[in-house]
This record gives sequence, structure tokens and C-alpha cells, in this order.
Amino acid sequence: MERVTVPIPGRSYDVVIGQDVLGRADAFVPDLPGATRAFVIADRTVADAWFVPLCDALARRAVHAVLLTVPAGEAAKTLDVYRTLVHQLATQEAHRDDPVVALGGGSTGDLGGFVASTYMRGTPFVQVPTTLTAQVDAAIGGKTAVNLPEGKNLVGTFHQPVVVISEIGALATLSDREFRSGLAEVAKYALTLDVDLLDELERDPGPVLAREPDALERLVGRCARAKAGCVSEDERDAGKRMVLNYGHTLGHALERIDAFAGRSHGEAIAVGMVFAARLSAALSGPADLPARTTRLLSSLGLETDGPLPSADEIVRAFALDKKFHRGIRFVVLRDVGRPEVADRVGEAEIRRILHEMGAT
Amino acid sequence: MERVTVPIPGRSYDVVIGQDVLGRADAFVPDLPGATRAFVIADRTVADAWFVPLCDALARRAVHAVLLTVPAGEAAKTLDVYRTLVHQLATQEAHRDDPVVALGGGSTGDLGGFVASTYMRGTPFVQVPTTLTAQVDAAIGGKTAVNLPEGKNLVGTFHQPVVVISEIGALATLSDREFRSGLAEVAKYALTLDVDLLDELERDPGPVLAREPDALERLVGRCARAKAGCVSEDERDAGKRMVLNYGHTLGHALERIDAFAGRSHGEAIAVGMVFAARLSAALSGPADLPARTTRLLSSLGLETDGPLPSADEIVRAFALDKKFHRGIRFVVLRDVGRPEVADRVGEAEIRRILHEMGAT
Repeated sequence: MERVTVPIPGRSYDVVIGQDVLGRADAFVPDLPGATRAFVIADRTVADAWFVPLCDALARRAVHAVLLTVPAGEAAKTLDVYRTLVHQLATQEAHRDDPVVALGGGSTGDLGGFVASTYMRGTPFVQVPTTLTAQVDAAIGGKTAVNLPEGKNLVGTFHQPVVVISEIGALATLSDREFRSGLAEVAKYALTLDVDLLDELERDPGPVLAREPDALERLVGRCARAKAGCVSEDERDAGKRMVLNYGHTLGHALERIDAFAGRSHGEAIAVGMVFAARLSAALSGPADLPARTTRLLSSLGLETDGPLPSADEIVRAFALDKKFHRGIRFVVLRDVGRPEVADRVGEAEIRRILHEMGAT
Repeated sequence: MERVTVPIPGRSYDVVIGQDVLGRADAFVPDLPGATRAFVIADRTVADAWFVPLCDALARRAVHAVLLTVPAGEAAKTLDVYRTLVHQLATQEAHRDDPVVALGGGSTGDLGGFVASTYMRGTPFVQVPTTLTAQVDAAIGGKTAVNLPEGKNLVGTFHQPVVVISEIGALATLSDREFRSGLAEVAKYALTLDVDLLDELERDPGPVLAREPDALERLVGRCARAKAGCVSEDERDAGKRMVLNYGHTLGHALERIDAFAGRSHGEAIAVGMVFAARLSAALSGPADLPARTTRLLSSLGLETDGPLPSADEIVRAFALDKKFHRGIRFVVLRDVGRPEVADRVGEAEIRRILHEMGAT
């Protein structure tokens, strides 16, 4: 078992990572004075697999778990589903001391966090991420969100969980595609913040790809540590946390373009990291970074050479990014493990790289 | 002009109170790097009276004001209106550096604050309260909210404004009923936190009732100072801020009971303060507190002897209060200016006082 502390003044919390930590949740959830019920948000599939052990664990703390099911994936992240959930909490007379628990992937966590942060102006929030993406990234750091028709994550809050319980056992049941999607975020940490991890993955990604529990526990622990470092220095996403957007500027633009809705988040940011690597090389980063990035991603099973939308569409999509303001801002690498922000990247340069990558 | 600082670590802000401060808003809004537009939320009546001068003032800071109109009063505080507003922000591509401005009474402020705190995970928020209730109470302290069909303020956040601009000129145009409603909150501060103000109001409420601008400016300033003191010690409503609920436990219950929807917030808490005074006297407060409270409120034009719902209905409504948990909690006075929390008030005692006050 690994335990990583996210040190935020006044509301530090632990990320607990291991096999069967979910079934022992009672040992990891901090004291919640006044809580009598826990409202667990999950989709049907995840609930079928994990609600009962979670229920049992919470019962040992005299907390009765109430299940609120939501649609799977991004379909849950709407104001409609949000409204249904806060109505359910109100009709059940949920109290503000009762925790909201998000059990599932990143979407469930984003939605659950938004509910927890706004119902009665904030209830305790417990993250129980069951996908690799959520365990290494989304569940840590307190960002909550729902989508609007106009764009992803346009509504949300910052609301830190009281604990994150990352069940390594849940990773065994992910589809290859879901698992690979998480590996894209892993590659992000390796390239930007943890060169030791990069070395390991370059040397032998075998144990990770075989999903050996010990290898996964170590992997999730390293990524959680990297993320915790960024978050604690910059809870509100103003400086250091920018680094976590490596590959995400183009990644989010691709996700925003309807024709690419078929790509997973991880697949989109994998392409985004190739773009970021090319941009880094063009600015003052290592010349071999694009090739090294492509090699790493493809060894992790991530395709980076699929078709791209037109450069026009992509540039238009950049303008809708929360980070966009009077110019486009990218995270680039001066070297692996040395990220920096490139503030004024010209549109011509962006188009040149997109064309090189095959965009029309 | 009065200026009161609300000292909250890392996000202190000023409450600026005076004649024509709204028309000079450009002088009081702090630096907002990156802001190019301000999204002003107001109902039609308030917008007709005040949007143009606010617009002009912001234009002097090169910020273009965009008006988003909402229904007047509590009708604005719904998830439907909230959704419309965040869609409008998204379609207009509002940026997270662009401030949201609430121009109006407490409802507009609660709604506007919720929009500001959740659009793109938080934009700068400017409060421009135009009612006495909002100026002395609702606009200060960062509580935001919308209602659910199940109850008032069940959804919301804490999101401090960057400045509160309280235009004393706006108080001249309030209806007597709206103005008196604000005086109920003023009486709350006088009774719980500011005995000098209590003395003044008891001696001669004339200048306040005549709405003399200088008297109002002083009055709003004193109340803002009292509220700022509570808020800075207890941003998240856990301890000192409880005091501000004096008279509100019964007041909110009355507002929650449909038959009493006709009473204004101020009228409901006026009755609530009479209840709290009787409870205080029964516990260990001054025996003359109920009579003194009734005298003060009636000198301010507030009726306290109208019909009440049944004690059964009231006790049921208490159970839905955010502050209710395994018992009912009341703020009482050991003496004027000396509030304390009474934690375990028995239901029999509550019913006895309600019956004394005329409830069946």
C-alpha cells in the first residue's frame, strides 16, 4: 500500500493506493463528525462491481451508504444530471455533514465533486477512483466540473476531497482502451516531472502493460506524488499546476471538435503531447523529443498518427480554452523533466506544426 | 463615504458605502488583470435605474459591461435561471478573468455569486447591493445560493466578492416594505453585536426612518462592520458566524411554510427575533428582552404579532434547516450584545413559546 499526502494548508488529505483498499475504506476515511449517511455516486457497472464492499466498509463506521446512480462517462457531466442529484440529496434530507462519495472514473469524480461542493454550500467529499486516468490525475487536486453544450468543464469549482482511495484491483477490469487512456497521463508525468519514471517506462513497460498489481501500485503512487506536488504549490491553477496541461491544449481542442469525439481523453492528449514535443523542439527543447515521445507512447499502446481535423478548426477550438486569453499558451519542455510555459506562440508556428503532423 | 475592510486571509476586500459610489465604481473595483468585459446580472427595474451609470464607470476602466437580466426577487434563485446565465456566459465566450457583477437585492447577489463562483471554476465577483437588506447583510460574507423546490439556499458556495459597492442613493427608491425588511436585519446587529447602535435606534429612529442619507450611510457602515467582524473570524460558517442567525431559525422556518410566503424575509426574522428574545429570557437572558425587542421592532415599523402557522408545522420546518442536526440549535442572548448558542433546546420549550406567541 502507498500513501501520498497532498499538503494543502488547512485541508491536507491522503491518497491511499493499493489492493483491497476500497474494502477497507473505513480505515482511511478521516473522522467525519455528524455524518450518518454517505451518498455514493456511481454508474451501474461500477456500482455492480464495487458498491457492496464500499457499503460494508462504511457500515463499520456506522455510516449508511445510499447509492445514486448516474450515466456512465461524460454523459454524466451535465447540469441535468447535477440537478437530479441535488434534488435527490434534498428529498432524502441529506445533511451537510454527510459525505458525498464519487465511485468511478474521472467523469463521476468531476460530477460528484461539483455536487459535494455546492449542496448546502459544501459537504465532505470522498474520491474512490476506479480508472487509471482518475487515479493518476483527475481524482487528485480538487477540480470539479460539468460540461455545457458550449464546451467541456465550463462549470465547476475547486473542492478538495477529504481522502482519495485508489483501488488497484479496479484496474484489472478496465478495457485495454480505458487502460491505455490512463497511460497517456502517466506518460505526461514521466515526460514533465519524473524522469526516473520515464527511464523505467522506456527500459521496460512490460510489467505495467501486463497490469502487474505491484507495478501498478508503484506507478499510481509516483504519479499521485507528482500531481500532489503541483497541486499543493498551486491549488487554484495559476502557476505550477499549468505543467499538468502538457499536451492538453491541443488535446482539449481535439476533444472539443465533434468529429473527434470518438477519441478518448488519453488518445487526444497523446496526440497533444506529440504536438507539444514538436513545439518544444522548435523553441529550444531537445531535438529528439518528438521521436522519443512517439516511441514512448507507442510502446504504451497509444496511436499518435491518426487523422487530424483541419488546422483552421483546431485554431478556432483553441479560442474556447479556459487558458486562452489574448493568445495561446502552451506548456513545453526545455528538456525532459523541465517544463516551462511558452506564452506567445505565433499562429503561423502552430499551423506549421499541425501541417507537419498531417492536418490540412 | 465609509469604507469597511473584510479581512479574510488572502482575499480581503472592501465594502464601500456612500452616495454616488456606484457612479464612481471605477475608483473602487480593484485591479482585474485580463478583464475586458463585466457581466452584470440585474432585474429589469434595477437595471433601468442603475445599469447606465455603472456601465459608464466601468468603461473608464476599459471594461465593457454586458447586461444579463433576471427575474426580480426570489424567482431568480433557481437552477433554471442559473443555467440560462452560465449558457449566456459560455455563448458570449466570457473569460474567467472577466468579472460577474450582481446589481440588485439579496436574491440577485446570491444568484450572481453562485454564477461567479462556478463559471470556469470561479471568476472575480463584484457586489453592488441596492437594497438595505443586501447592503447590511447578504452582500457581505461570500455566501452564494439558489433555492431548490425542497428548500431555500440548498445549493450554493462560499465565494468572496472582490469589492462591495453599497450605493446609499438606491435606498431612497425602496418601497416602505422593502426598507423595513432591511431594518429587521439592522435590529439583529443592534441586539446581538452593537449595543451603541441599539441605544441610538431606541433613542431616536427618526433620521433612519426618514432615510436621511447621512444617517443611512452611518447605519449601513456600522452593520457592515459588525458583519465583517463575524465573517473574518469564521468564513465557513462554523462558529462566530452563527450569531448572524439570531432570529433566523424561526424566520427561515416561517419562510419555508408556504402559507407564510407572503411575509418578507425581514418580517419573518422580526417574528423570529421575538421568539429568540422569549427563549433567551427563559434560558438566562434579561427578562425584559421580549418587550424591548417588540418595542424596537415596532418603532422601526415591523409588525411582530401577525398570525403564526401551527407549532406542528413550525417544528417540522425546523428539521429541514441546514443548521438542524440531531436537535435544534438557536442563537440566544445572555444580554444585549452578548449572543451565545443554545444547543439542546427541548421541543416542549419551543412549543410553549410558540403557543405563547399565538401559534395553535
